[in-house]
Amino acid sequence: MSDTRPIGIFDSGMGGLTVVKEVIRSLPNEKIVYFGDTARVPYGPKSKETIIRFSIENILFLLKNNVKLIIVACNTASSVALAAIEKNFKVPIMGVIEPGVSEAARITKNKRIGIIGTKTTVKSSAYEQQLIKIDSKIKVFSIACPLFVPLVEEGWLKTKITQQIVADYLMPLKNKNIDTIILGCTHYPLLKSVIQEVLGRKVHLVDSARQVAYGAKQILEEQGLLTNREKTARQSVCFYVSDEPDNFAEQGEKFLGFALNKVRKVSNV
Amino acid sequence: MSDTRPIGIFDSGMGGLTVVKEVIRSLPNEKIVYFGDTARVPYGPKSKETIIRFSIENILFLLKNNVKLIIVACNTASSVALAAIEKNFKVPIMGVIEPGVSEAARITKNKRIGIIGTKTTVKSSAYEQQLIKIDSKIKVFSIACPLFVPLVEEGWLKTKITQQIVADYLMPLKNKNIDTIILGCTHYPLLKSVIQEVLGRKVHLVDSARQVAYGAKQILEEQGLLTNREKTARQSVCFYVSDEPDNFAEQGEKFLGFALNKVRKVSNV
Repeated sequence: MSDTRPIGIFDSGMGGLTVVKEVIRSLPNEKIVYFGDTARVPYGPKSKETIIRFSIENILFLLKNNVKLIIVACNTASSVALAAIEKNFKVPIMGVIEPGVSEAARITKNKRIGIIGTKTTVKSSAYEQQLIKIDSKIKVFSIACPLFVPLVEEGWLKTKITQQIVADYLMPLKNKNIDTIILGCTHYPLLKSVIQEVLGRKVHLVDSARQVAYGAKQILEEQGLLTNREKTARQSVCFYVSDEPDNFAEQGEKFLGFALNKVRKVSNV
Repeated sequence: MSDTRPIGIFDSGMGGLTVVKEVIRSLPNEKIVYFGDTARVPYGPKSKETIIRFSIENILFLLKNNVKLIIVACNTASSVALAAIEKNFKVPIMGVIEPGVSEAARITKNKRIGIIGTKTTVKSSAYEQQLIKIDSKIKVFSIACPLFVPLVEEGWLKTKITQQIVADYLMPLKNKNIDTIILGCTHYPLLKSVIQEVLGRKVHLVDSARQVAYGAKQILEEQGLLTNREKTARQSVCFYVSDEPDNFAEQGEKFLGFALNKVRKVSNV
């Protein structure tokens, strides 16, 4: 059996490109359709109800593209919308919370785990609930870091000010003796080195993107949905956005590590 | 003649509340309907085409509320959408650019004016074009400050980090010998004291909100649209938003200086 349909991935904007990068690495033969909701980005400060509505619209767009699996590559949408939407669609839908949670629970030795994310992600307690479900002895320390996304989008990845802001936000974690932290937002891997520096070398950073790609591979294998095409060229990633494509194409390279060939605007969401 | 219909004001989010505050001060007898597009905020990094579409939807909502004048209380929308939309509607529509520009041109002595705003506002050159139309000898120095809005929304109005970020962005203006600067975004008045400190006491800060309120009063007078009602209570401001109202009501107090009685969510935009 071979299923040549693409994998659908959506995010509020371009943060989900960190997931695209890892999916390309783990599943180089698969086609990908990416949708970034750049006209309505960010989702982080918005309400659950609104994010569910946006997520359903994004999924309907991906389904028009005949996708075989949908990855919700946005931590905020995964936190507050996944449970409400996955039960209504036949296509398998996976979020970015569970893979990061499994990895963090596997890695931690002292069972003290930090979570950083957007306001809505942290408020949802989605990470906390799933970690405690795996091991009720795990202690979770969550912090919302609303300025991290604007900093990344401004391209201030390693400036002195960025270091200070990261240090400021993470201060309350410093004396909590955590040995693992989940980067609970797809933008945060771009601040990895600064976060590592602030928390010290002993704290393990869990970047969900990589775990998500492993999880996607597993689902496709289990459900017999893998393609048997030859390794695809980068052109088999189709990028769609809801705002003008120019800025996305330009900034996207920072996340992906290679130039985006073509980004198209869709107005039906 | 007395026209008791409300004034309609819209913004991408809550920044426009700085305009509401000044309109209440200048026109205490008028009713106001405010719409904050909080589900799609911010407009600043988005494209002209998308902002025009959002603005038309917002105007159609305000027209359903039978408004007699519309104030586009968002610098980004005023910069890129006003010209395209005002010609299509019968209702008078005013933006926040022209009032700030007139005031700055009146105040400046050395004809060297700074402009700060979002990426899209600065890219549009709307301020520059209008200033030069008034006086071709005026020299304009524009800087986009994308982190100012997230800083204000995070409530970091006077922290050390905020001072550093403001100093960083405004550094290129320091040796330009400007005597006037237009705060080209409705969020920026909340950073007034830090901006003043960085630029020094000699630079005059133009806060468009106040000028907009004077301009609105003038239009209503000229067109015979003033009400003759008695001074209204604060309850005659109706607040509508496109995302959940709780956060807006809570944060809005910072902008308005008084508690918002009731904020309602509308889903038709």
